[in-house]
Amino acid sequence: MERADGESFRWDGRYTHDLNTAHTLDTRLGVFADFHPRVPEDFRHPEILFLGNIDPRLQLEVLDKVERPRIVACDTMNFWIEGSRHALLEVLERVDILLVNDAEIRQLAGDPNLVRAARWVRERGPGRVVVKKGEHGAALFDDDGVFFVPGFPLEEVFDPTGAGDAFAGGFLGYLEGNGDLEPRVLRNALVHGSVLGAFAVEDFSTGRLQSVTRAQVAQRVRDFRAMTHFELLEAHA
Amino acid sequence: MERADGESFRWDGRYTHDLNTAHTLDTRLGVFADFHPRVPEDFRHPEILFLGNIDPRLQLEVLDKVERPRIVACDTMNFWIEGSRHALLEVLERVDILLVNDAEIRQLAGDPNLVRAARWVRERGPGRVVVKKGEHGAALFDDDGVFFVPGFPLEEVFDPTGAGDAFAGGFLGYLEGNGDLEPRVLRNALVHGSVLGAFAVEDFSTGRLQSVTRAQVAQRVRDFRAMTHFELLEAHA
Repeated sequence: MERADGESFRWDGRYTHDLNTAHTLDTRLGVFADFHPRVPEDFRHPEILFLGNIDPRLQLEVLDKVERPRIVACDTMNFWIEGSRHALLEVLERVDILLVNDAEIRQLAGDPNLVRAARWVRERGPGRVVVKKGEHGAALFDDDGVFFVPGFPLEEVFDPTGAGDAFAGGFLGYLEGNGDLEPRVLRNALVHGSVLGAFAVEDFSTGRLQSVTRAQVAQRVRDFRAMTHFELLEAHA
Repeated sequence: MERADGESFRWDGRYTHDLNTAHTLDTRLGVFADFHPRVPEDFRHPEILFLGNIDPRLQLEVLDKVERPRIVACDTMNFWIEGSRHALLEVLERVDILLVNDAEIRQLAGDPNLVRAARWVRERGPGRVVVKKGEHGAALFDDDGVFFVPGFPLEEVFDPTGAGDAFAGGFLGYLEGNGDLEPRVLRNALVHGSVLGAFAVEDFSTGRLQSVTRAQVAQRVRDFRAMTHFELLEAHA
């Protein structure tokens, strides 16, 4: 691929036909290579801290610069799982919630089985693990066991880029102002993450997120409920 | 691979690492190549008829030999979708429920999107479409919209062979003796199919299915409910 200035570069990631898995061909850190976060005074007392997908050493720096938030969540990816494993494990010790996709947690735990992989992570710090599975939905592993939300059935997926961040925004946004990380609250948070992720992929970039209303979010939460709940009927002989 | 008699043969299918997708390398029909079903008199008045995965022309022969059952369901696979498409579409016109996996319905409808693919199938006969997605669960498309059941979270999957047939057995077995194909009944049927499929993969062949009890099935149905239901909490400001 050619840039306007004629210098060639490679995609950092691409999606295959099914849009569930981004394949990394090459990672160039660019400005992040020598980046050190400066945290303004106003940001040093967050209720919720989300450590986005970046070098775990920088995630640790941010953690050191803020007062212990009520909730710390983090994301990561293959590049750091391979290259900065030690720092990443240090981060995990200080995190309440890990949000990753299924390929990432398998790689992190070195185990293809999600149930075992989630337990492996939970034993290393984050008591709650959220696994995002693209069109196959998301799973929450916590003291209450496992909770699943399916992928929202969309007829058109324009652009999966940013779906994971929108998911994190919906998930953590729901937790803001709520009390403890109790399972029934976390379940609602997972549904809200799924709703926001599903809106994000309906248009390019942040297009759809800019226009979505609270009423549309609430409707889609009810849609998720309608798509997953069933009455226990009397078993017949 | 060598057989005991020294004649070489190839696997009809194999599973990759994730055990969700069987890859067909070669299909040899063997005794099915010249098979024509004979239906004994006692079997000509079934309440439920399941047309297993076989040449659609034979599925049509069976349909012609029985009195119209209350429910007709069928399965199929890539080999027939490619090679006997016309007969398969004739079968679909006479079927109430199609049970297939996600790759099969995408191939059948020529559409990677499950929602659109299910609608394509429903317009061609089967009012209810069940899509099996291996560890990602199953989906039911009917007049009520879509209903999802996640894959049961197992720590060990010994052998996915036969999971689809166990699923069909659980699904249709649940419908036996029940009334209409109403959505609340079909949802329970989908859960029962998922339960039986999940038991099937816990051991080789039919090992686990031979020992499973009704109480264990009922418990796993409740487990599915616990893993998917959530309370709608008041949205906060």
